[in-house]
Amino acid sequence: VVTFGEIMLRLSPPGSKRFLQTNYYEAIYGGGEANVAVSLANFGLHSLFVSKLPKNDIGQGAVNSLRKYGVDVSHILRGGERIGIYFLENGASQRPSKVIYDRAHSAISEVESYEFDWEKIFEDVEWFHWTGITPALSESTRKALETACIVAKSKNVKISCDLNYRKKMWMPDEAQQVMIPLMEYVDVCIANEEDPEKSLGLIPKGTFVKKAELSTEGYSQLAEELKNKFGFEVVAITLRESYSASRNGWGALLMDGKDCKQPCFSHKYDIQIIDRVGGGDSFAAGLIYGLLNYNNNKKALEFAVAASCLKHSIPGDFNLVSVEEVNKLAEGDGSGRVER
Amino acid sequence: VVTFGEIMLRLSPPGSKRFLQTNYYEAIYGGGEANVAVSLANFGLHSLFVSKLPKNDIGQGAVNSLRKYGVDVSHILRGGERIGIYFLENGASQRPSKVIYDRAHSAISEVESYEFDWEKIFEDVEWFHWTGITPALSESTRKALETACIVAKSKNVKISCDLNYRKKMWMPDEAQQVMIPLMEYVDVCIANEEDPEKSLGLIPKGTFVKKAELSTEGYSQLAEELKNKFGFEVVAITLRESYSASRNGWGALLMDGKDCKQPCFSHKYDIQIIDRVGGGDSFAAGLIYGLLNYNNNKKALEFAVAASCLKHSIPGDFNLVSVEEVNKLAEGDGSGRVER
Amino acid sequence: VVTFGEIMLRLSPPGSKRFLQTNYYEAIYGGGEANVAVSLANFGLHSLFVSKLPKNDIGQGAVNSLRKYGVDVSHILRGGERIGIYFLENGASQRPSKVIYDRAHSAISEVESYEFDWEKIFEDVEWFHWTGITPALSESTRKALETACIVAKSKNVKISCDLNYRKKMWMPDEAQQVMIPLMEYVDVCIANEEDPEKSLGLIPKGTFVKKAELSTEGYSQLAEELKNKFGFEVVAITLRESYSASRNGWGALLMDGKDCKQPCFSHKYDIQIIDRVGGGDSFAAGLIYGLLNYNNNKKALEFAVAASCLKHSIPGDFNLVSVEEVNKLAEGDGSGRVER
Amino acid sequence: VVTFGEIMLRLSPPGSKRFLQTNYYEAIYGGGEANVAVSLANFGLHSLFVSKLPKNDIGQGAVNSLRKYGVDVSHILRGGERIGIYFLENGASQRPSKVIYDRAHSAISEVESYEFDWEKIFEDVEWFHWTGITPALSESTRKALETACIVAKSKNVKISCDLNYRKKMWMPDEAQQVMIPLMEYVDVCIANEEDPEKSLGLIPKGTFVKKAELSTEGYSQLAEELKNKFGFEVVAITLRESYSASRNGWGALLMDGKDCKQPCFSHKYDIQIIDRVGGGDSFAAGLIYGLLNYNNNKKALEFAVAASCLKHSIPGDFNLVSVEEVNKLAEGDGSGRVER
Amino acid sequence: VVTFGEIMLRLSPPGSKRFLQTNYYEAIYGGGEANVAVSLANFGLHSLFVSKLPKNDIGQGAVNSLRKYGVDVSHILRGGERIGIYFLENGASQRPSKVIYDRAHSAISEVESYEFDWEKIFEDVEWFHWTGITPALSESTRKALETACIVAKSKNVKISCDLNYRKKMWMPDEAQQVMIPLMEYVDVCIANEEDPEKSLGLIPKGTFVKKAELSTEGYSQLAEELKNKFGFEVVAITLRESYSASRNGWGALLMDGKDCKQPCFSHKYDIQIIDRVGGGDSFAAGLIYGLLNYNNNKKALEFAVAASCLKHSIPGDFNLVSVEEVNKLAEGDGSGRVER
Amino acid sequence: VVTFGEIMLRLSPPGSKRFLQTNYYEAIYGGGEANVAVSLANFGLHSLFVSKLPKNDIGQGAVNSLRKYGVDVSHILRGGERIGIYFLENGASQRPSKVIYDRAHSAISEVESYEFDWEKIFEDVEWFHWTGITPALSESTRKALETACIVAKSKNVKISCDLNYRKKMWMPDEAQQVMIPLMEYVDVCIANEEDPEKSLGLIPKGTFVKKAELSTEGYSQLAEELKNKFGFEVVAITLRESYSASRNGWGALLMDGKDCKQPCFSHKYDIQIIDRVGGGDSFAAGLIYGLLNYNNNKKALEFAVAASCLKHSIPGDFNLVSVEEVNKLAEGDGSGRVER
Repeated sequence: VVTFGEIMLRLSPPGSKRFLQTNYYEAIYGGGEANVAVSLANFGLHSLFVSKLPKNDIGQGAVNSLRKYGVDVSHILRGGERIGIYFLENGASQRPSKVIYDRAHSAISEVESYEFDWEKIFEDVEWFHWTGITPALSESTRKALETACIVAKSKNVKISCDLNYRKKMWMPDEAQQVMIPLMEYVDVCIANEEDPEKSLGLIPKGTFVKKAELSTEGYSQLAEELKNKFGFEVVAITLRESYSASRNGWGALLMDGKDCKQPCFSHKYDIQIIDRVGGGDSFAAGLIYGLLNYNNNKKALEFAVAASCLKHSIPGDFNLVSVEEVNKLAEGDGSGRVER
Repeated sequence: VVTFGEIMLRLSPPGSKRFLQTNYYEAIYGGGEANVAVSLANFGLHSLFVSKLPKNDIGQGAVNSLRKYGVDVSHILRGGERIGIYFLENGASQRPSKVIYDRAHSAISEVESYEFDWEKIFEDVEWFHWTGITPALSESTRKALETACIVAKSKNVKISCDLNYRKKMWMPDEAQQVMIPLMEYVDVCIANEEDPEKSLGLIPKGTFVKKAELSTEGYSQLAEELKNKFGFEVVAITLRESYSASRNGWGALLMDGKDCKQPCFSHKYDIQIIDRVGGGDSFAAGLIYGLLNYNNNKKALEFAVAASCLKHSIPGDFNLVSVEEVNKLAEGDGSGRVER
Repeated sequence: VVTFGEIMLRLSPPGSKRFLQTNYYEAIYGGGEANVAVSLANFGLHSLFVSKLPKNDIGQGAVNSLRKYGVDVSHILRGGERIGIYFLENGASQRPSKVIYDRAHSAISEVESYEFDWEKIFEDVEWFHWTGITPALSESTRKALETACIVAKSKNVKISCDLNYRKKMWMPDEAQQVMIPLMEYVDVCIANEEDPEKSLGLIPKGTFVKKAELSTEGYSQLAEELKNKFGFEVVAITLRESYSASRNGWGALLMDGKDCKQPCFSHKYDIQIIDRVGGGDSFAAGLIYGLLNYNNNKKALEFAVAASCLKHSIPGDFNLVSVEEVNKLAEGDGSGRVER
Repeated sequence: VVTFGEIMLRLSPPGSKRFLQTNYYEAIYGGGEANVAVSLANFGLHSLFVSKLPKNDIGQGAVNSLRKYGVDVSHILRGGERIGIYFLENGASQRPSKVIYDRAHSAISEVESYEFDWEKIFEDVEWFHWTGITPALSESTRKALETACIVAKSKNVKISCDLNYRKKMWMPDEAQQVMIPLMEYVDVCIANEEDPEKSLGLIPKGTFVKKAELSTEGYSQLAEELKNKFGFEVVAITLRESYSASRNGWGALLMDGKDCKQPCFSHKYDIQIIDRVGGGDSFAAGLIYGLLNYNNNKKALEFAVAASCLKHSIPGDFNLVSVEEVNKLAEGDGSGRVER
Repeated sequence: VVTFGEIMLRLSPPGSKRFLQTNYYEAIYGGGEANVAVSLANFGLHSLFVSKLPKNDIGQGAVNSLRKYGVDVSHILRGGERIGIYFLENGASQRPSKVIYDRAHSAISEVESYEFDWEKIFEDVEWFHWTGITPALSESTRKALETACIVAKSKNVKISCDLNYRKKMWMPDEAQQVMIPLMEYVDVCIANEEDPEKSLGLIPKGTFVKKAELSTEGYSQLAEELKNKFGFEVVAITLRESYSASRNGWGALLMDGKDCKQPCFSHKYDIQIIDRVGGGDSFAAGLIYGLLNYNNNKKALEFAVAASCLKHSIPGDFNLVSVEEVNKLAEGDGSGRVER
Repeated sequence: VVTFGEIMLRLSPPGSKRFLQTNYYEAIYGGGEANVAVSLANFGLHSLFVSKLPKNDIGQGAVNSLRKYGVDVSHILRGGERIGIYFLENGASQRPSKVIYDRAHSAISEVESYEFDWEKIFEDVEWFHWTGITPALSESTRKALETACIVAKSKNVKISCDLNYRKKMWMPDEAQQVMIPLMEYVDVCIANEEDPEKSLGLIPKGTFVKKAELSTEGYSQLAEELKNKFGFEVVAITLRESYSASRNGWGALLMDGKDCKQPCFSHKYDIQIIDRVGGGDSFAAGLIYGLLNYNNNKKALEFAVAASCLKHSIPGDFNLVSVEEVNKLAEGDGSGRVER
């Protein structure tokens, strides 16, 4: 599986401290597509992450963080001005987590498509995954992504996209102008409960996201609309109910016109949150693994939801769980009993 | 806004460790009045904290902790024997937090009123806030406080008092002997659900604090009685429902014979607690800000409750939130969604 | 009170980190019987822990950890190859805690019975406690335990056993072969909801442990059966309802044919978990203290459950609470209000 | 005293760890001119730092770090894209410390001169200090600096400049083109043993900096040449002998045509290094304090060298020492005996 | 061996941080006499520490810290107002370590002699050790010490005293008034290079302590004078050469009119300092052990100096070394080679 | 380059703490051959590490630690009972570092030769490196090593051996019985100043290792004797002068009958030690790199010594330096000046 995008340095105050209270930052690396790449490597797939990083120790740290978990880094270019940084303050109870982006001028945002050898990258590859963050980075990154899609398509590689709308990166109308044309390459569309509206201009009926009330029917309609309008093979939407920064409901639906002619709704988990960043990415990775390995898309959905449920209990962007752990939860053991 | 009182060195074992388990203490500074002063500075008001601290690096650390957040420290005297210390063990679930006071002989408790230049301190000041801890420190501190009230009153400064009864500092009858006469200077009286009984001898009907069952009617009556008996302009009572050391219900009532002829009850928050020390102080600060800035006391109440709800999610004594953050919660977004 | 068993070095990643994320381990010492010994010393009893530890600084660290809390270590032998180690990853939400044992070849597992001076050890002793882990260590440890039981019995020492089945140590049939004969020495039998089946071959009816649904009637019958079949004076069973790794229900039952002719069910606590390792051991210690000090076994049960409820809020294996703290909770104050 | 320049977020791996080994960064703020401002505030002078910082919590953290130590921050503008960051890896023994700059596009580097109210800034000010880093940031910053110099000069403010050449910021010829014209405003020129060559094109004779052998005569001549060529009132050069990253020799010379007609050489210290960043800045601050407070420039020199000697023993960029501590060392007590 | 004195809570910023930089304190316990008690327990002697501590968790922590290392705590009284605290900032290079005492009103300083059962304490005891800090605490502590000396003397217990002058506790003339009369009970007098002058009014010739130049002859004369004037059996003086806070020379002399008719000078060590607090105490403990176990006082001296040399490499007040480790160094292996 | 051996979990108390003082362990992975493998990967060579590790997260952590730095882990077997552990206490000044091995029963010590596919492993490989620790692990590991040597030899792979004698693993006579026959396969023999005597029975004349006096002539003779007796192509001996645990002299000699007919002695470094574990391994790796890349063995020697000099400044077992950094030092810049 190939993923293409940005990996950033993430700097967080420890525990529940606010930015103004900390005198050190926990430093890890993460980013939508990199998170998916690590998840897939943990699931035992050959996972190739494509990006560009500066030629200094901070860039090397990002490479090492991927290599550590077995991601293939042989197509990460080195050069450019800097690595993107994001500062993350962990929320708690009624206080939301806070992200400060310092990602402008990053190496990947200034990369040119010709720097990558797409033909080589997609050799013997089954799947290509990207998210809406990549084309939001810059016009040149958008072009590189488009080229990647074209080459992948030409080699019959399956393409999945996680819409991943980020309001600090672009406005809905900019997003839609860029994202809608790219949908033509996409086979599997992944979204959260807010993305379809912001990235593709489709509005769910009857949902009030901030109040943690999600409308089942509204989302069923939305999935159907998405599928029909863009011709996706599979549509999957994660459904987060934010009771507070410490506790969320978490589930998803999948519609494929096959196993799930009507949208299948997954088991819903009630989660005590340790770190919710990367929750959506772990869902995407779980879904890709499930679609590739189970010939039952309902099972793939449950795998994806269980995988991402576990992610919320793990600090950092990466979902460090094995296929066995995910299946144990998907099969119903969420009791959290000590194993000894 | 002027506040007058003690700031102490607070030493806590990390996380949920007990005193006997720790080999280091997290060190911050805090104290009822100082906490209010910092909150107000964070809200953008000119905030002047009056106290006395020893002339050594531990005392200087207290000054710096206030200066860092923009509090005016120009009327903090330096001298005396020592800074008060309090050791705080964080509770969890059914295990309560534990406080060991080592505050006797502190510089502020041995200060004499004449050391302060009250005339200068209250120049061009709108508001004076103090809590029941200040007169509990010593007879000389009580006298200084009384002088402060007299000078403030003479300059038409509005005076608020948070009753803040501390059973490790004095007995109810001592407290009442001191506190009742001081009420004559007070315009705005702030209390928690236990204070009016201990500090002023008024008993709510039908409440069993330890069982987390608060009686709405009882508190309405109590507010009315307080208002009538002492002639306060505004009475505000915080209502904490202690389900456990990890989770509390939190709300408040306000009665002013104007916007709230009958006591207004605020929105009630269900809080996952990070640090509840300073919760009451953040309410007082929020109320002062609200009363000064909104010409609607119901809105001031909601601001105060939202501010103090957020405090519970922040480690340390100080409430490090902005007016915008408080208003966002007061307007109803407690979903804790990541901002990115 | 004498306890006999293993104390291990416990190594845990900090907070909620997974093994693969950590670059340091919090290091404490613990083990079923040692945990009971420390609890009893904290309750003010003379507590003598019998074991064997290697003659190096890691072994000495175990001795010091016991000595620190006042446990009598004068009968801990020194020698042998190594100390047992267990790695513990703290779970959260749906992710269970994970234990990796590295305890083979430990000094205690290779001890011979004659190395201990049992006659001296049981001089003027009232109570002897052991758990099912001790005989699971090795054949030679089993023999030493048997000798200990015989000597204790000959001196009229009361004997309690916590069945403590560990599936990573032995299979149910092995366990039963060893444990059933040892029951003849036991006066007080302590078990969790799974042990009687695994260690003694008795099956509760209608319980599905993993689903957190415990059957009251089933457990009553089980207690009765245990009492009848093995002739125990007292049977106590802890009842854990695992909603998740972060939250458990916790209670117990006791049957003694006296104060509790029908099984008495304790108060049930809803616990936010800090560290659940040692939960069962703290129950056993509470029960021993209660049976020795209260002439009411119902009260002993409530003391034991309250003690072990508090244990869940304390990091590490040891339950560091005083008799006063336990009684305060047992008498109904679980509000977690700050004491100041 | 006014200082004008950049304050950055400094991120360092703990202790002697390399960038590739760390999973957290110690976070402080620092920068040549800010370091001088804090030193001066610690010495009790009114210290006003002029700069621009982004309007987010990371920028606010920089403001707070200055405010904490009593620096006047009322002329720090808020706005712009980002705060400059520098990553610092602490060297040890033969391994040098390593700096990775990520300072491009910082708010201060994109500021325009008109944004500052220079007339107000220099009201009642005695001294203006800047370093060679400020004009290296960008053309617009250079212009702002020039304006500042002109306004300061017009108000008879004394101007000091620390040449502070940074090879990662510009080449010697660029530096010289910018710096030489600015020298006309400078009264007190401060340099290290390499700066005069790089920034002003003057070459010391007989020095081989990398070999830690400094030529006394060469530096005397250089000082004289500097003084003559640019007409400085006072020239001061710090002389560092780098035995290794852990141990340095440290001294300075001063020439003023008055107290030190021939260059005065200070006492030389043999320093065990804790943190050498900010060493030169602490010398500059010490010199400014000394020149303002002692009517003996030899004494001012010894004060400056002692102040900066102490800086090397303090972690972080800021020199947190009092006038008393500096004088105690300058008067000859470097024994490091415990004070108790 | 009995020791009598104070044990305090010691709070230090981590590493080389200054007080004003820290946001946590490393917390250990220590104090002159307690340090000796722990050393002696580590050497395998029965070590009984006599003191008084408050009845709270901070006092209990002190008890546990002693118990952990095997000190007999059965004669530590519990009660009183507070435990003494001292804040310690670690120096480095030319910056000295800094101590802030907050020890007034401690339980031990307000103890009365009758509270201790001296007859029982000195039953079957060979040695009694105290230091000059104990009588400096208060008049009542001085009286208790005097009683202890009288009772000890009556039972033929050998008495050693470490003069341990502290300028922050009393002036030389106060000290001399108290200390000189107490010398009548002392058999073994231990001092550093400054104590005899401050505590007993005897002045060494030709020494300039601050310049790290110690005069051998001067100290020989001083030892002789001490021995003659006060009739001590053994006089031992430690000789510290403070090159800086990071590096010291360390040795000692002993005079006993027997093995060392002329003062014996020990091997001199050149020490890279980790923590020098407790250095003198570890010498005293080493000397007591040596005098009790070797019938050669020159050997005892070398043991004491080697023990205290090792102390300087260990963080905290306590000297955690074994007899074997000390002997290995005393016999000449200071190469610091890894043992593997 | 192929290396074959053990990688262990290393657990160290932080900083200078002793084992008995710590409550956590820094956890890294290391071991003679693994350290060489990582060094070589850092130098840009293809580095293949052959070993066996248990199939649990602790074993996986070892794999990840190698993968992170780019080592090829495709021939690490998974299975067996446990990973070897070593506890390391960092020494300081006169106190030596202390190692406690808990490595018995490790997976690699119980591996059988046939488990490895040596033919595949040595395909297209230039160099094979092992150390004296590997055959000391067990008879079966010795056999595996012998097979590896035979296969390597048959493929014309160059073989280097670092004698690496460990007295806690075997006695000199056992070592010699095993090591001497293995020398027949060795082309490049690497040793420290003590190894040739212990592992091969050759005694240097005139050296007293513990006194830090090394005899140049003695070592020249020894090198010659080694070369002659065992027919090595290259002999290299590291020369450590242990002044203390904090400071060492470090150099080496090389003899090859070619570039260095008479032993070439390298530059000697005076090192302030951060972590000396892995110092010898970094020398071996540097030498292999140098011999492979420079056609001048004197230059290879200087590269090796500079590489290992830098290692002493880096925490952990692994030498994390680049070829550029090593060459910069080898070319003479050890001034440790900040690079900025």
